[in-house]
Amino acid sequence: MSIKKVMLGIDIGGTNTKFGLVQKNGKVVAEFSVPTKSKNPAKELVARIEKSIKAFLKDKVEKYQLCGIGIGAPNANYHSGQIENPPNLKWGTVDISSMFKESFNVQVKITNDANASALGEMLFGAAKGMSNFVTITLGTGLGSGIVVGGKMLYGSNGFAGELGHVCIEFQGRECGCGNRGCLECYVSATGIVRTVAKLIAEKKTASKMRELPFAKLSAKLINELALEGDEIALEAFDFTARLLGVSCANVAMLNAPEAFIICGGLANAGDLLIKKTKEYMELHLLKNFKNQIKILPSGLINKNSGVIGASALAWSEFEN
Amino acid sequence: MSIKKVMLGIDIGGTNTKFGLVQKNGKVVAEFSVPTKSKNPAKELVARIEKSIKAFLKDKVEKYQLCGIGIGAPNANYHSGQIENPPNLKWGTVDISSMFKESFNVQVKITNDANASALGEMLFGAAKGMSNFVTITLGTGLGSGIVVGGKMLYGSNGFAGELGHVCIEFQGRECGCGNRGCLECYVSATGIVRTVAKLIAEKKTASKMRELPFAKLSAKLINELALEGDEIALEAFDFTARLLGVSCANVAMLNAPEAFIICGGLANAGDLLIKKTKEYMELHLLKNFKNQIKILPSGLINKNSGVIGASALAWSEFEN
Repeated sequence: MSIKKVMLGIDIGGTNTKFGLVQKNGKVVAEFSVPTKSKNPAKELVARIEKSIKAFLKDKVEKYQLCGIGIGAPNANYHSGQIENPPNLKWGTVDISSMFKESFNVQVKITNDANASALGEMLFGAAKGMSNFVTITLGTGLGSGIVVGGKMLYGSNGFAGELGHVCIEFQGRECGCGNRGCLECYVSATGIVRTVAKLIAEKKTASKMRELPFAKLSAKLINELALEGDEIALEAFDFTARLLGVSCANVAMLNAPEAFIICGGLANAGDLLIKKTKEYMELHLLKNFKNQIKILPSGLINKNSGVIGASALAWSEFEN
Repeated sequence: MSIKKVMLGIDIGGTNTKFGLVQKNGKVVAEFSVPTKSKNPAKELVARIEKSIKAFLKDKVEKYQLCGIGIGAPNANYHSGQIENPPNLKWGTVDISSMFKESFNVQVKITNDANASALGEMLFGAAKGMSNFVTITLGTGLGSGIVVGGKMLYGSNGFAGELGHVCIEFQGRECGCGNRGCLECYVSATGIVRTVAKLIAEKKTASKMRELPFAKLSAKLINELALEGDEIALEAFDFTARLLGVSCANVAMLNAPEAFIICGGLANAGDLLIKKTKEYMELHLLKNFKNQIKILPSGLINKNSGVIGASALAWSEFEN
């Protein structure tokens, strides 16, 4: 049996850190999850990951060869290799790439989680074979990754792709970033909840959600109720799809991608979101952009997309 | 005296077509302008340009060597080499690249005028040495060219960079493209005129422009009156700068460029537009984007930027 090359993909989140060994075909040969414990020094997390992976590989030296590490993390700067003051980790600015390089003695690359998702879709998911596309990850916020000419767009500061903080309304909803009217205040799991609250205030339409406190509303519940025909839930999806559709049209007219790939929990909403988003996008496109740009759900739904994406960064950087 | 390589830059406009021979250092060695006469076949325009250039070069075979042709034209598709149904030319879709190739027997590339401007700025203007930047040309409309990693962004359909048609207001002003609320309805020479008309309707403030019919208002006049302290003119510039500033912030968060280069007539407005645009952009940027992105006037003001830009396309494609 020949030795198989694997990359270590690490998805650092505010609460948990997931990591795993991934082959070139995208197959995950081992997966792990540990609490991030970001109040402790980053070095401690690195040590725990090192311990798990080295224990796993110990009796498999003839089976797997670790060739590199890819990391997806909030506020990760591809150019500097650092995580820079993410709001949900207590580390300040840390050169986590160097720490992993020291522990494992392999090449390490880091980028933010949204960019890692885009690379995951390009190598192993819905964007296979595409060289111009944009991923939009709808979770608590809205993350995005832009690929141009087959390459991740990092931009001059390493932070390109912040579609979630594009301003769509000057005096709009307050955003965690300190600005107002950012797209992610409308188009995200929390955004659709805010939209429901607004619709409840404005409309007289009956809805089960009138019986629930704001804090109990969730995108998942709104999705379920929309499928049952709840009008407020349906209108919330329509409003979300409209804003996402116009935003896709706007990005399309700048970058002319082949497709937008919708990732994250809301990608499961299917026709409720994706079909409508496509319709609204088409309405707003210039003639020479119409009927050519796809809107697709992630090709990694129900898979460990964070780990696969982080490994894709390593595969795309260190393949040879 | 050694023979000098030159590229022929051609800037095809709705009314006039300008063309010229440009050296590698950006020096224009000969300039011409002819009426486009777009009611006649495109082949006729090609023949007239051929005649002028061949006459000029006739007794200079030991001085200049024509190495290629770059064309900037409305609705030009870089990928296909064609001009595709531009609203202000009557040619339908024409393969103008092949016509020039046949006439001159040199390599030919075509792109839209806004992209040609961007290449001009990169090779000979304000973006010299930059590899990530965006040009915004404010004329009758708003054109833009996006450079990523030192390369013009054409996108999958060849039409990328249509910042002028990004929607900033669903139910906004009617645009020539058939949509509503496109950025160029607000931020352009015609956009600022529409803004003045709106302010005249809304405000009680005195202004010389109340004595003029709408059809007599122009960006140049508004600029002059703003410098004289006319409050409506000043407010129109402020409004224009605010929308341009937010739009720059939005593009910045997607592409993380080093700079925005403002081209076209309104670039002469200086502090009235550029300084304010920068202030509004900074207000809307995420923290990790602040204080790093420049807003600069074109480096080709008062030069034949259309011809120089078109030649830059040829220089960037055929240098070796």
